[in-house]
Amino acid sequence: MNPRATMKLFHFLNSRSKLFQCRVFGENAGSRFSLMSSAGISTARQSYGADGGISSRIYADFSIFKGKAALSAAPVLPTFSKAGSGYTKVDRRGVIMLTFRPAIGERKYDSEKKQLFALSVTEVGSFISLGPGDSCEFYHDPSIQSRDAGQVRKSLSVKPYTDGYFISLSVTNNILKTNERFTVPVTTAEFAVMRAAFNYALPHIMGWAQSTSPPTDGADRDVLKVHPQLAAASEWDR
Amino acid sequence: MNPRATMKLFHFLNSRSKLFQCRVFGENAGSRFSLMSSAGISTARQSYGADGGISSRIYADFSIFKGKAALSAAPVLPTFSKAGSGYTKVDRRGVIMLTFRPAIGERKYDSEKKQLFALSVTEVGSFISLGPGDSCEFYHDPSIQSRDAGQVRKSLSVKPYTDGYFISLSVTNNILKTNERFTVPVTTAEFAVMRAAFNYALPHIMGWAQSTSPPTDGADRDVLKVHPQLAAASEWDR
Amino acid sequence: MNPRATMKLFHFLNSRSKLFQCRVFGENAGSRFSLMSSAGISTARQSYGADGGISSRIYADFSIFKGKAALSAAPVLPTFSKAGSGYTKVDRRGVIMLTFRPAIGERKYDSEKKQLFALSVTEVGSFISLGPGDSCEFYHDPSIQSRDAGQVRKSLSVKPYTDGYFISLSVTNNILKTNERFTVPVTTAEFAVMRAAFNYALPHIMGWAQSTSPPTDGADRDVLKVHPQLAAASEWDR
Amino acid sequence: MNPRATMKLFHFLNSRSKLFQCRVFGENAGSRFSLMSSAGISTARQSYGADGGISSRIYADFSIFKGKAALSAAPVLPTFSKAGSGYTKVDRRGVIMLTFRPAIGERKYDSEKKQLFALSVTEVGSFISLGPGDSCEFYHDPSIQSRDAGQVRKSLSVKPYTDGYFISLSVTNNILKTNERFTVPVTTAEFAVMRAAFNYALPHIMGWAQSTSPPTDGADRDVLKVHPQLAAASEWDR
Repeated sequence: MNPRATMKLFHFLNSRSKLFQCRVFGENAGSRFSLMSSAGISTARQSYGADGGISSRIYADFSIFKGKAALSAAPVLPTFSKAGSGYTKVDRRGVIMLTFRPAIGERKYDSEKKQLFALSVTEVGSFISLGPGDSCEFYHDPSIQSRDAGQVRKSLSVKPYTDGYFISLSVTNNILKTNERFTVPVTTAEFAVMRAAFNYALPHIMGWAQSTSPPTDGADRDVLKVHPQLAAASEWDR
Repeated sequence: MNPRATMKLFHFLNSRSKLFQCRVFGENAGSRFSLMSSAGISTARQSYGADGGISSRIYADFSIFKGKAALSAAPVLPTFSKAGSGYTKVDRRGVIMLTFRPAIGERKYDSEKKQLFALSVTEVGSFISLGPGDSCEFYHDPSIQSRDAGQVRKSLSVKPYTDGYFISLSVTNNILKTNERFTVPVTTAEFAVMRAAFNYALPHIMGWAQSTSPPTDGADRDVLKVHPQLAAASEWDR
Repeated sequence: MNPRATMKLFHFLNSRSKLFQCRVFGENAGSRFSLMSSAGISTARQSYGADGGISSRIYADFSIFKGKAALSAAPVLPTFSKAGSGYTKVDRRGVIMLTFRPAIGERKYDSEKKQLFALSVTEVGSFISLGPGDSCEFYHDPSIQSRDAGQVRKSLSVKPYTDGYFISLSVTNNILKTNERFTVPVTTAEFAVMRAAFNYALPHIMGWAQSTSPPTDGADRDVLKVHPQLAAASEWDR
Repeated sequence: MNPRATMKLFHFLNSRSKLFQCRVFGENAGSRFSLMSSAGISTARQSYGADGGISSRIYADFSIFKGKAALSAAPVLPTFSKAGSGYTKVDRRGVIMLTFRPAIGERKYDSEKKQLFALSVTEVGSFISLGPGDSCEFYHDPSIQSRDAGQVRKSLSVKPYTDGYFISLSVTNNILKTNERFTVPVTTAEFAVMRAAFNYALPHIMGWAQSTSPPTDGADRDVLKVHPQLAAASEWDR
């Protein structure tokens, strides 16, 4: 994402109220681009999980079933690849994927109408640092920086209420002229679970958990070249 | 559990004082149902722990021995199973099992008269987010939503005192006409241990710890299909 | 330790000022007794670490070198053993071992004159929950509940100062008529490291980290019996 | 580092304002010396990572791209070696390496002009315990305690602003008569990520994560001697 644009953005936001302290635009455009490129390259070079296999073998989410919609959250691990110099690095950062499903009856939710919102590492940082009464709003635009910027937009908002937070997702598609909105009331207890689980997941979606733990059997044994930085004995070596 | 009922419930509770902010009904009825179904199904399909073996090979609890009763807490890991599409998912969520034993003499506690209370993921969330002076109360009913609703009930309460919290369990059985009550004074230090240990255990009983770590030798090597969601390159892929 | 005595003790302490909120007596006497018994028994049955080997293969401490003394802290993992029924359980809880060494010159400390203080799980709970301005004091007596009670005593105190805490250990031996005292000023930053490291170590010295993670290659493969409690499908099964 | 000097230093600093509460000098000089010695010795004895291999096989950093400079943070694990008595201990403590790169155009940063600052364990402790409005400043000098003390100096400062912290690095070289300065505005969300990630990394760069987890396949199987301290059954054994 354009750093200067970001600078302007935050300077602009700092004049806003605390309510909007964490408005962020197009966070995911970047990861989407990197995704596309990596997808393109991954035919050329192998992209694999930290264990040499796929990123996740087991699926575990945290779901909240409420009257009008259900919200599920699950970590998506980063992918890794060999860099030119031979060491292994993060190919694409992980995210925490939020899935909203509308209710279509008693305990029934429509997966066909589901909408996804992928919280980036920094957005997870905002989420877990929300204090009582704080609000948060994130904007994602697949076409940011392109001619279609703003045609399709997703926005996720987290707003406090008496016993927790309302988490809402709205998806606006100016091309299809559609506008969907989901709102899920999350209790203090449920939010505490999300905060603890997101805090746990953060170093895993960043790749720090993988970079600090020893290789497993599944690991690509050839990948033993060290990143020049890690080889640097200290900050004084150049 | 009926989501609409839940909605009503929380709306109702929001009008209550902070003291009851985390009253929750029948939390475990749901998990019990899923248990029964999974039990039924598990004859048909294999249910196993994340490592391909049983969920726990080592038993470690945290016990508090006081004058009238002893309280022990231990994590119970989730079980996993293959979904139709071949990926592995949580079959039954884990819990933190609380066990109360009445004292029957100097350092002697009666295991025959023990009573269990299984804290669900969300109840653990309430527990670890208790602030100084906060109280908490949980209700479990095996027959919730059935004709016998309310015949047998367990309620766990956490109430503050000068140097910590009183944790009490009462079990009422209207059919057997029995009513048992245990109260254990938990010091600030002991509560700090429970909070830190429960916070650590949370991602493990949710299955997030297992879904974010590479497979071990014990792991079912065949289980390499990915959940469609995790395969989704980004929130924009459908 | 006698639970009634504990009850009385805490009731007594509750009337004290916050300064002494976490005074604890003989915490370790219990662990020492269990140690002796386990030592006795361990000739009969095998005692081993969670990985089937010894509890710690790598030694890493956190040391603070100050003008009059050095303070080192290191986690000591629990040991495990098979219970009669065949499942594996914690044989002896771990501790965080504090070591004090007096200074005998520029950057020189006398290991011959070192004194140890083993923080129990609950004492670690007190330690990590110390708020700004809080104090803490722990008492250990190897002969508690015996005729020699009070003859040899160790007390560790944590007291706040402008930029952190003074951590002091005094060892009084009425038999040898000796009285040693060490005081180490711990800065806010150093204390933050201790708090974070102790918080990390807590589930490991409790055995929860071992009971929630899959077995490693080193693991005793025979140990697959489950603790009856963990086998309990839910709190309703008896 | 000279402990008496440190004592004087902190006494001196305690009279300063909170703003400078965490000024620390030459923290890294020590680790640099130990590095040099270990480098010298490591030709004689083998130095290896906890898994018997190199410290890091996977490189994952957290990068913040802003208008004038980019800041990257990545954990560097400790190295381990056998002590004379045969047990394994930390050879050199890990750090969190901060890398600053100046911007040279849209989303372009100059790696040739990068400057490194290695946060020591204690500096990481200061960093993660920064409260709202707190500031922090660290000084590194490769020649501390030598004749050239102060000729080359690096200082890292963390200062609060409306929506986060300004993290600045200045490098002064009196010999080359150069003076470089980088400033990166870090938002509250980005700082929350750093705090959570640094908190996660802390036990890993201290070596506690390695000392509390079982050996992996890569592990040096011969290293099974226990540190005398860990062998000590309790604080009462000498």
